[in-house]
Amino acid sequence: MKKIRVFVAGASGKMGQEVIRSILKEDDLLLVGASDTRHQGMDVGFVAGTQRVGVDITGPLDIDTLRSAKADVLVDFTNPQSVLKNSKTAILAGVVPVIGTTGLDEAEISEIRVLVEKENVGAFLAPNFSIGAILMMRFAKESAKYFPHVDIIELHHDQKLDAPSGTALKTAEGILEVREPMVQGHPNEYEKIPGARGADLGGIHIHSVRLPGLIAHQEVLFGGLGQSLSIRHDAFSRETYMPGIILSIRKSYELTELIVGLDNFLD
Amino acid sequence: MKKIRVFVAGASGKMGQEVIRSILKEDDLLLVGASDTRHQGMDVGFVAGTQRVGVDITGPLDIDTLRSAKADVLVDFTNPQSVLKNSKTAILAGVVPVIGTTGLDEAEISEIRVLVEKENVGAFLAPNFSIGAILMMRFAKESAKYFPHVDIIELHHDQKLDAPSGTALKTAEGILEVREPMVQGHPNEYEKIPGARGADLGGIHIHSVRLPGLIAHQEVLFGGLGQSLSIRHDAFSRETYMPGIILSIRKSYELTELIVGLDNFLD
Amino acid sequence: MKKIRVFVAGASGKMGQEVIRSILKEDDLLLVGASDTRHQGMDVGFVAGTQRVGVDITGPLDIDTLRSAKADVLVDFTNPQSVLKNSKTAILAGVVPVIGTTGLDEAEISEIRVLVEKENVGAFLAPNFSIGAILMMRFAKESAKYFPHVDIIELHHDQKLDAPSGTALKTAEGILEVREPMVQGHPNEYEKIPGARGADLGGIHIHSVRLPGLIAHQEVLFGGLGQSLSIRHDAFSRETYMPGIILSIRKSYELTELIVGLDNFLD
Amino acid sequence: MKKIRVFVAGASGKMGQEVIRSILKEDDLLLVGASDTRHQGMDVGFVAGTQRVGVDITGPLDIDTLRSAKADVLVDFTNPQSVLKNSKTAILAGVVPVIGTTGLDEAEISEIRVLVEKENVGAFLAPNFSIGAILMMRFAKESAKYFPHVDIIELHHDQKLDAPSGTALKTAEGILEVREPMVQGHPNEYEKIPGARGADLGGIHIHSVRLPGLIAHQEVLFGGLGQSLSIRHDAFSRETYMPGIILSIRKSYELTELIVGLDNFLD
Repeated sequence: MKKIRVFVAGASGKMGQEVIRSILKEDDLLLVGASDTRHQGMDVGFVAGTQRVGVDITGPLDIDTLRSAKADVLVDFTNPQSVLKNSKTAILAGVVPVIGTTGLDEAEISEIRVLVEKENVGAFLAPNFSIGAILMMRFAKESAKYFPHVDIIELHHDQKLDAPSGTALKTAEGILEVREPMVQGHPNEYEKIPGARGADLGGIHIHSVRLPGLIAHQEVLFGGLGQSLSIRHDAFSRETYMPGIILSIRKSYELTELIVGLDNFLD
Repeated sequence: MKKIRVFVAGASGKMGQEVIRSILKEDDLLLVGASDTRHQGMDVGFVAGTQRVGVDITGPLDIDTLRSAKADVLVDFTNPQSVLKNSKTAILAGVVPVIGTTGLDEAEISEIRVLVEKENVGAFLAPNFSIGAILMMRFAKESAKYFPHVDIIELHHDQKLDAPSGTALKTAEGILEVREPMVQGHPNEYEKIPGARGADLGGIHIHSVRLPGLIAHQEVLFGGLGQSLSIRHDAFSRETYMPGIILSIRKSYELTELIVGLDNFLD
Repeated sequence: MKKIRVFVAGASGKMGQEVIRSILKEDDLLLVGASDTRHQGMDVGFVAGTQRVGVDITGPLDIDTLRSAKADVLVDFTNPQSVLKNSKTAILAGVVPVIGTTGLDEAEISEIRVLVEKENVGAFLAPNFSIGAILMMRFAKESAKYFPHVDIIELHHDQKLDAPSGTALKTAEGILEVREPMVQGHPNEYEKIPGARGADLGGIHIHSVRLPGLIAHQEVLFGGLGQSLSIRHDAFSRETYMPGIILSIRKSYELTELIVGLDNFLD
Repeated sequence: MKKIRVFVAGASGKMGQEVIRSILKEDDLLLVGASDTRHQGMDVGFVAGTQRVGVDITGPLDIDTLRSAKADVLVDFTNPQSVLKNSKTAILAGVVPVIGTTGLDEAEISEIRVLVEKENVGAFLAPNFSIGAILMMRFAKESAKYFPHVDIIELHHDQKLDAPSGTALKTAEGILEVREPMVQGHPNEYEKIPGARGADLGGIHIHSVRLPGLIAHQEVLFGGLGQSLSIRHDAFSRETYMPGIILSIRKSYELTELIVGLDNFLD
């Protein structure tokens, strides 16, 4: 069996290390390179807290490095400053970027799309690699056809700055695509303390809980006549993203177009 | 607009009364008759705890009664002893039975199917009219493709005799259709007290909680790398079944075949 | 055994009827009278949907009625307009009022206290008769000593007008009595949509979910290092208040002072 | 301020490393020694993944080592083979052992008690250092006075071998101390698949869920008339035990008796 050859950019970061460990467990994937600004020259296995793998961490990505590694896929978990350049470098080297770094704006995504078409080399971008979260959003959208009344409760550790979370917003947007415009709650309801009813996005109320100890959780709660239906996802660690990343590597390496969103790779 | 003409058998029972109240709220449905062994001769609106509707409760169903009522649909919530006879009577009268009464065995369902084909009159049968429960089972089946590890926790009032519940068993069976055969839990796990790990159906563990105060609840809990995904349905009252029954009436009245299962009427 | 003789004011209301049914089930309680503006002259058992009990519903409460009924306790579930007058009538008749009607203000409660002291007849008042809710508030207060970080999520049917619920506010107030003043969440956190972080009461965030189908639910969620602790109460029906009301009758009938709050009767 | 001088046995293990990191964060605690069979001679800060602290890991514990370190407290997270010997060594050296290692049997605990009395040096032993779990058990016991009907659902990762968990058994035992003997569920209930109703301990049903991704969770669910009350603890990481261990160090160092159980240190 031909193995898929994977290069990891941002290998010394927390996500990068987790990705390294996950790739090393898969028989059909071969780690052929790793780059980062930190730990250059060290064996990437040691950096990731596992054993020697014979791949040293190199510095800033360039076309030659990717070509000489004969990489099929570049997994990028770097930072908003590097991700665009890295992705373009990959495409120009004939390597499919699997982009996990967030922060690309619309213009930058367009730039990637143009390059993908010109070079006939694919690219994959996902705001969320958690298969469980993707299924939650899908089920939420499907439920809303029958249960238009819904509140979203998202719960995160108290170091998170923004509220509501990006996943909560995306979930609500998905629901709004399928349900008719409506107002929820009693028309005469009132808040004794402002904010009690949460954030309102198109009539959907979103509640953001922030507590130490929590990690990343979301419940989508639908109410109907005499019943409720709840879809909840709990992410306990970075491992939650690994099956989605591994799946993306397998599905991306022969792409010749830009695909955005993990849901495209789920049946 | 032509209204769908509905006859309710078992109108004095708790489900029957709830069905009566629900039908009366729908503009496109017309209540044209009601039968029961109890309250014969009384106005069905009074029996159902609402106002006079001008329809009296009649005794045992027969073809003439259904024909003179010009019923399109017979909703049956009677009892295991009456449901087969009532369904056949309806079909012979050219009326589509929507069967909510449980207890029909395979041979009896076949009998209905044969009659449906002979008379060219449809019939609809559902073990569960709760749209929320149907969605839960559907999502569970879909989730199992990506998260094969799953436990089912079902919680009911403590007057329920059987465990696991029928819905839990159906949920597990649905999951088993899509996942590969597997054993869950550690191969060396052991019970310090028998039963701790619940009922085992094809490797899926089902846990039945019975407590006063509870009504009918089920959580399907999937575990994967660093995460869990949960789908939960809570039924708080008989009203939970009404939207599914109303939907079934609307979808059934022009049927010319036997359909089993509410999921056939959901997109 | 001497039975406690109970008179119910507001007997025809939904709570009143539930109270009637509950009293009839207890061996040590005797229903000796019932009043309401509705159903006067009807047997209260019929009105409450059970069998004849030989007690007819009478009109507006007065001292003679209570005295001739030889009542020990008056349970009042009337309305904000009647409750003060009824309570005073009871005390003057030497009958202990157990007051479930909400809406008494501080001045009115003082008026009752003064009369209680003058007449040497007790009175009992509770904003919440749910033992489960009282325990939830007690545990929340106790938990806050060790887990100062807490969010409250309360969930109710969508016909409820005010948010947050009275129980949520009381829970937060209880916690604020024991924990040091503090700010929760990251100092730089921000709301992308206003209200996302809920209502803020003394640093505690309260989130009010309103959905059809729901009844009355509350979760108090504490977060600490690597863990969370949750206390949740679900009220599914008016029955939830009955054990607290029965307990209050038993504990109140020999009172000679004004007691406020069901927690006083729990160990 | 005099600092409490702490020695950690089992410093290279996962719990040991976490304890080291936690002690280093507390101003009133001073790490004065660390032992393990692994990493001897290495700085314990490096082993624990933090910076150099100037304390090297030493080999098997003996009285001289503890004395020359002038330790006040020995925290032991070693293994069932070493814990008894270590605890006795500490007591003989005049050092209070705080014992987190599980596996001591009744006879061994008695042996420690005898030595404690003879030497007039305290000792502390806890099967569970999670403050949240201790509160859960306390609240469960208190709730059972009012809500005798209860099921316990405990959920753990699927590498756990025993079911039910030790915490679930302890929770049930605590409840059984306060409630009257009773049978739960309908007297005629039956299992269609054996085990559905869980493990039965004195009439309490315990359900053990095992799934990958989960960590350590438990819900104690009480049911009563028209309501349910739930107390749930989620442990997401080893950090969950740290506040309890730090508290135990502070409370133990002046002990002169054997104390068993963290609940003794909570108000």
